[in-house]
Amino acid sequence: MKELENIENNIENNIKDFVCKYEEYREKLKAYNYAMWMISWDSSTEAPKGCFEERAKYTGILSEESYKLQTSKEYIETVAKLFENRDKLDNSMAHEIVEVKKDVDKILKIPMEEYVEFQMLLATSQNTWTEAKIKNDFEIFKPCLEKIVVFIRKYAKYLETDILKGYDVLLDDFEPGFTTKEYDEFFGVLKKELVPFVKEITSKKLNYNNDFEKETYPRLDQIEFAKYIQKVMCYDTNHGLMKESEHPFTSGTSTKDVRFTVHYYEDLLVSSIFSAIHELGHATYEQQCNPELDDTFVGGGASMAMHESQSRFYENIIGRSLEFWKIHYGKLQETFKEQLEYTTLYDFYKAINKVENSLIRTEADELTYPLHIMIRYDIERMLLKGEIEVSDLPNIWDKMVKEYLGIDVPSVSEGVLQDVHWSNGTFGYFPTYALGSAYAAQIYNKMKQEIDVENALSNGTTKEINEWLKEKIHKYGRTKYPNELLMIATGEEFNPMYYVNYLKDKYSKIYNI
Amino acid sequence: MKELENIENNIENNIKDFVCKYEEYREKLKAYNYAMWMISWDSSTEAPKGCFEERAKYTGILSEESYKLQTSKEYIETVAKLFENRDKLDNSMAHEIVEVKKDVDKILKIPMEEYVEFQMLLATSQNTWTEAKIKNDFEIFKPCLEKIVVFIRKYAKYLETDILKGYDVLLDDFEPGFTTKEYDEFFGVLKKELVPFVKEITSKKLNYNNDFEKETYPRLDQIEFAKYIQKVMCYDTNHGLMKESEHPFTSGTSTKDVRFTVHYYEDLLVSSIFSAIHELGHATYEQQCNPELDDTFVGGGASMAMHESQSRFYENIIGRSLEFWKIHYGKLQETFKEQLEYTTLYDFYKAINKVENSLIRTEADELTYPLHIMIRYDIERMLLKGEIEVSDLPNIWDKMVKEYLGIDVPSVSEGVLQDVHWSNGTFGYFPTYALGSAYAAQIYNKMKQEIDVENALSNGTTKEINEWLKEKIHKYGRTKYPNELLMIATGEEFNPMYYVNYLKDKYSKIYNI
Repeated sequence: MKELENIENNIENNIKDFVCKYEEYREKLKAYNYAMWMISWDSSTEAPKGCFEERAKYTGILSEESYKLQTSKEYIETVAKLFENRDKLDNSMAHEIVEVKKDVDKILKIPMEEYVEFQMLLATSQNTWTEAKIKNDFEIFKPCLEKIVVFIRKYAKYLETDILKGYDVLLDDFEPGFTTKEYDEFFGVLKKELVPFVKEITSKKLNYNNDFEKETYPRLDQIEFAKYIQKVMCYDTNHGLMKESEHPFTSGTSTKDVRFTVHYYEDLLVSSIFSAIHELGHATYEQQCNPELDDTFVGGGASMAMHESQSRFYENIIGRSLEFWKIHYGKLQETFKEQLEYTTLYDFYKAINKVENSLIRTEADELTYPLHIMIRYDIERMLLKGEIEVSDLPNIWDKMVKEYLGIDVPSVSEGVLQDVHWSNGTFGYFPTYALGSAYAAQIYNKMKQEIDVENALSNGTTKEINEWLKEKIHKYGRTKYPNELLMIATGEEFNPMYYVNYLKDKYSKIYNI
Repeated sequence: MKELENIENNIENNIKDFVCKYEEYREKLKAYNYAMWMISWDSSTEAPKGCFEERAKYTGILSEESYKLQTSKEYIETVAKLFENRDKLDNSMAHEIVEVKKDVDKILKIPMEEYVEFQMLLATSQNTWTEAKIKNDFEIFKPCLEKIVVFIRKYAKYLETDILKGYDVLLDDFEPGFTTKEYDEFFGVLKKELVPFVKEITSKKLNYNNDFEKETYPRLDQIEFAKYIQKVMCYDTNHGLMKESEHPFTSGTSTKDVRFTVHYYEDLLVSSIFSAIHELGHATYEQQCNPELDDTFVGGGASMAMHESQSRFYENIIGRSLEFWKIHYGKLQETFKEQLEYTTLYDFYKAINKVENSLIRTEADELTYPLHIMIRYDIERMLLKGEIEVSDLPNIWDKMVKEYLGIDVPSVSEGVLQDVHWSNGTFGYFPTYALGSAYAAQIYNKMKQEIDVENALSNGTTKEINEWLKEKIHKYGRTKYPNELLMIATGEEFNPMYYVNYLKDKYSKIYNI
């Protein structure tokens, strides 16, 4: 007995040592991540053009140091040991080790030279894409995209498992548990339920006074209103900041520092309002994570779609609701006295919910948005299966836009070249945007049963809503998979009908059908 | 003969290998410096208050990694080998190795845990100081400053040599060749020559229309004028940027990215103008360094006083000259039409050169400025000698301000808490400010013999002046010691009488004495 106890104690001490070792590595890896995060924030917001060549050199060195740590024998062995003994770890650490083990396995499956070569390709590819987009010439980007696709196909191959093959590897990478099987089902429902509904809606005209859309909205006044929105959404400015950048984004290191950006167009008032609300949705998620997870690799958001569900929940379900603007339209009118003098709350509400088949995904309304995603999903799948090649993309793109949205694509800039994602080697990411909206609707359905959302908004902030989401989703960070979180928050598995019903209900009312 | 040649070739190849090894280390060390620079820029300009504790942890880890590299056996041996063979290296590399060897010797004298602990303390100390200054409460900063002073005293002790003891260690660290002996001589001259002159000047009244000093100057218009000054001084915005911070500063990584900040007071027009010119002086020095030195440890400025000589040259000798404002006062009046409508060029010129005993160093006029420095020099020396403690600082400060400047200090914010330096662990730095002014006057004396400065300014930019300074000083970076640069630029050793004569000449004219 005594001897057995001793052995068990030894094993436990042994595991404690491995946990300590792991935590040492984690702290260092996080320090490199912190430095890279800081540099990347600067790059995306204010860095002078002439610094990038030097910057690339130093970030290269820092990544290499981090890569060496992650592929060091000791780290790999430590992770492996903890993985074997994960039943002896607490829940959060066990989950973290499973995820870290996956990352380590992935890194080890890709030959370092190919990885480096790909990183070098990606260092210039976004520039090439930008040039092609500006010059409206797909041929400029084609050779570069071809190289990227060659790598992505190889990457998917390297990472294949008994269960996951081809495109599924990439999809599951961004959204655990979602492969073509699940997405086919999801998009199948949307095709059946939404496509005819969109046709019906877009055949009708929405009447409202749209004079305000022709006005000019000074940048500084828009910033003032964005700051007001910050307060409405209870954003903690002690642990984050708002800035400007070409493309709005949110970027956090932990609950201690979650930053976001907005872009201001003086001729488009609603653009900055809704990008602020959207990014603040992401930021709220990160700020409300359990701070005890700050030092781990399982803080932040559970998955891409879950993150997007929060930004879209605030942007569309709350931010484009009549209840929200009943409270805040007065402040908007006060900020833009002259421009909004003759625009009623209802004019504004209709304007921000107008449905229209359009070319550009990022400017699409809430209802047609998922159609833009389906186009990209279908194309990526065909590309990964080898059914089409990069040179086929412009034609396929235009054909599918005609099919899904019923409109002609006048230029590649407004067509196949519109999104930055592929130039960054990001394939399998787009579907999470639509899935996020569907998660949001399912979560909203449950929230309405538990709190009076209209009443919650009436005191001028989203505090009660934030708190509900914190308890049900945010506090868990990445310690649960998205399907587990959905179960905790809604008591049900994923069901896309909540999304369909939410959209049909909302837009039937707006369009009086 | 053949054999001897082979041996020599072997030695040379051997040295080449050491140079390669050294360059590898240097690149990595510079990558860490780059990350720390980026984080520190963020800390001083926009980082949210709540991030600093976490930040301290990660900067601690990054410093530790850098420290480990700098104290690794291989690096130390490599540097030692190159130091032994420095006669076989080219001039610039030889100088670099001498300097790096000094740094290595220093770092080895400081125990790693203490070094890291100090870095972590410094990561939050500036924030503490800011809070104390805002709340006008020395007690908030006291415990933090006490810890800093404990470290600084130990640091000085660790680094003592046969020649350098106590405060001298710190002084020589910032300005090679300058210890209490040299500074006592320098300040002795100033005390003898300037103190009576200042008394004479301050007893007189300068007559001018000072109505404009009661006006309000909107922040955005001040920013516009600061951008105009950027252009005047030919600042390369492709390799740097201007931002706001509480305490203006310049911070560069290489010629590729040299940033600076300005602070705007709406009731004090001249503050932002002269801090912009001052910081642009620093920035010009760094931007005009030979770009081939970017990858080395001998880019940037030769020493603190030499750096300060450039900022003060532009700020005071150029920026407060009648010749400069003859060209640019029109633009200033145009920017502030109403506020400056009845202010003549001569009113403005007198205003920016008014001599007055005042509380704030950074706002002090050119003539009383060195008195502010003498106060700090005396206090630092007493503190390092252990003759006074941190808790004595507020009283001692007020007493010395009374003694040197003849005025009472109404609050710690305007007294002992006014400067950021001690919160960054910077002791021994202040004297370089006064020395810099003296270098500047000596350099200006020579410049006037070689170019027509008034004519150089008449085309609206400082281009010709920049170029003269680039050739004589800036291009050398830190490949020469300050005394060598003074010799190159002026053909003479340091002589404080140029400074005394410059001041007496300028202010006798302005005050008609």
